[in-house]
Amino acid sequence: MADRDVRTGEDKRSTEIPSIRWEEPPEGPVVVLLDQTRLPAEEAELVCTDASVLVGAIQSLAVRGAPLLGIAGAYGVALAAARGFDVDEAASALRAARPTAVNLSVGVDRARSAYRAALAEDGDPQRAAAAALDAALALHREDAEASTRMAGHGLTLLDELLPGGGYRILTHCNSGSLVSGGEGTAFAVALAAHRAGRLRRLWVDETRPLLQGARLTAYEAARSGMAYTLLTDNAAGSLFAAGEVDAVLIGADRIAADGSVANKVGSYPLAVLARYHHVPFIVVAPVTTVDLDTPDGESIEVEQRPGFEVTELGAPQVPVQGAGGGVPLAPLGTQAYNPAFDVTPPELVTALVTDEGAVSPVTAEALAELCARARQAALS
Amino acid sequence: MADRDVRTGEDKRSTEIPSIRWEEPPEGPVVVLLDQTRLPAEEAELVCTDASVLVGAIQSLAVRGAPLLGIAGAYGVALAAARGFDVDEAASALRAARPTAVNLSVGVDRARSAYRAALAEDGDPQRAAAAALDAALALHREDAEASTRMAGHGLTLLDELLPGGGYRILTHCNSGSLVSGGEGTAFAVALAAHRAGRLRRLWVDETRPLLQGARLTAYEAARSGMAYTLLTDNAAGSLFAAGEVDAVLIGADRIAADGSVANKVGSYPLAVLARYHHVPFIVVAPVTTVDLDTPDGESIEVEQRPGFEVTELGAPQVPVQGAGGGVPLAPLGTQAYNPAFDVTPPELVTALVTDEGAVSPVTAEALAELCARARQAALS
Repeated sequence: MADRDVRTGEDKRSTEIPSIRWEEPPEGPVVVLLDQTRLPAEEAELVCTDASVLVGAIQSLAVRGAPLLGIAGAYGVALAAARGFDVDEAASALRAARPTAVNLSVGVDRARSAYRAALAEDGDPQRAAAAALDAALALHREDAEASTRMAGHGLTLLDELLPGGGYRILTHCNSGSLVSGGEGTAFAVALAAHRAGRLRRLWVDETRPLLQGARLTAYEAARSGMAYTLLTDNAAGSLFAAGEVDAVLIGADRIAADGSVANKVGSYPLAVLARYHHVPFIVVAPVTTVDLDTPDGESIEVEQRPGFEVTELGAPQVPVQGAGGGVPLAPLGTQAYNPAFDVTPPELVTALVTDEGAVSPVTAEALAELCARARQAALS
Repeated sequence: MADRDVRTGEDKRSTEIPSIRWEEPPEGPVVVLLDQTRLPAEEAELVCTDASVLVGAIQSLAVRGAPLLGIAGAYGVALAAARGFDVDEAASALRAARPTAVNLSVGVDRARSAYRAALAEDGDPQRAAAAALDAALALHREDAEASTRMAGHGLTLLDELLPGGGYRILTHCNSGSLVSGGEGTAFAVALAAHRAGRLRRLWVDETRPLLQGARLTAYEAARSGMAYTLLTDNAAGSLFAAGEVDAVLIGADRIAADGSVANKVGSYPLAVLARYHHVPFIVVAPVTTVDLDTPDGESIEVEQRPGFEVTELGAPQVPVQGAGGGVPLAPLGTQAYNPAFDVTPPELVTALVTDEGAVSPVTAEALAELCARARQAALS
């Protein structure tokens, strides 16, 4: 069961709606999401009263972005526990909602482990639910802190790679506060450069088919007062050729043990262009995005999404027309190839910036060491 | 003054509407266009009764594609002459309607030269107008013949480069009968492969922002019965990485003397990807696209189009909403970078296929020789 609270009009920039939050109104606990499918036209909240609504919200991309999916997964488990639903069932459904981002299952597992451990200890489901919620809140807080650290490490790296400032940064998809408990990943680095007076321009790839760049990154860039310019994904080549890109900054949905990076489709062509033009290609992601259980790029499962996302435009303000509910952009019956992600091999990645510091070059050894260091830090 | 004749519904596939034609109804001569901005939703004709309507149609992309623009330009001059308007003024306006395609000014100049020569000979404006029309009709006919020859040379080249058939060809933008007096350029080669039973699949880049791939190439592919699949421009990288592309075939709007190719924005990134993956990148264009007066890529003027083409979706079937008349895709006030074309350097072009044969590698010497041969053939 979902409820919506829509804020539009003049006052919409005066309030900051968090991407996700836990609330406990008298009717019972809920997870409240900023519905990202309706941005930038309106800032609508989606109130999830059980895990299945949250699963639907994850699948429809109302909530998205690798780190935020982890937080959503953890809150989903906490919600199922608090509302007295089957926690294992909810955890399975949440984990299966989208296959590529490792953070989703990591978040789900963390809250479920806390729940199980507490339940095993004294058998009290209410205390176990509280433990699951504590785990979710901790993940949320840690993710915000990780954003801050990534922004710092990323800005340091930019200053090293490109002394002199005045950065013209190209980004793809959305990687700001809408994907994170904090200010995001790649976008957080651009934001830090902006605040330090060293960002000359953010080039924003529109990111077809779902236009997360046009809808979400442009929205976040406008709110932060950055100089930004939108472009079609295929126009990035012209910018590189004209020498107008100093660095590419993107996020990641999963990083394999060999350093292969799964991120929004369109990232790999940028990596090839960046290499051809000797421009740094920098991936920014929390250490939790590194999945040592996935050995290499070929082992990453890439989600294939429905063709109608390509053949129709599903704008919320447009009357329903096509089979997929949007405006037809292609002849009826046209088949589309629509992978949600692509995989960039480590040799095309100049550096990986994480909350535990930057890695360059990106190798299996460096990632293993990074993960060991992160585990150590978590234990200490 | 423009008039529209809209054909929709069941019978639309049973009739073949030419992209452009000259007609002489009792009210006076007209140029009739298939309005490409309304495809694939409806097949509407745009009837131009004077050159200024044709200029508007060129600017709004109702008629587009390098070879077809040349034919349109020539008919525009013939129309001004036949209707008794100032031919030089019409020629200037037509030539300036779009800057990048060389064919447009070549077509305009050809009809105007014929007009002037006839006028100088006996001073009869009616005979001069007839001479301009003859020049336009000849250009139209020659372009159709050039398509046929390009298709033949292109198929021969494919068979040499990729023996065994079963081609999986990636194309960008639209280069079929909608850009030509015949069956087109790059698309005509794919069509020849299809008819010869050697096309396994045509991968169709949607081609943002105006979606000529989704709207026009998919429409032509569907009509011809090809196996085709649509993709977002940024998904091409995944296809290359998966080894699913045997060759890239694109058209060209202008080819400089050094072999630099201006074509629809998004062509250059494909050239870089093709090089990285050792896939042939083939440009198909009539010899008239080679402009020896433009020395190199940097000298090609690239048309910058309005930002609202990126920030809004201008679908004809959608109610007007944004400042540019379409559905807003980005926050209000978002600036966009919107070059219509990009430039691919000759070292990334495997071969250029023209009506006078294929050139590989593409060098200044080879192009000069090709143009000399074409001039020779025209004189003989």
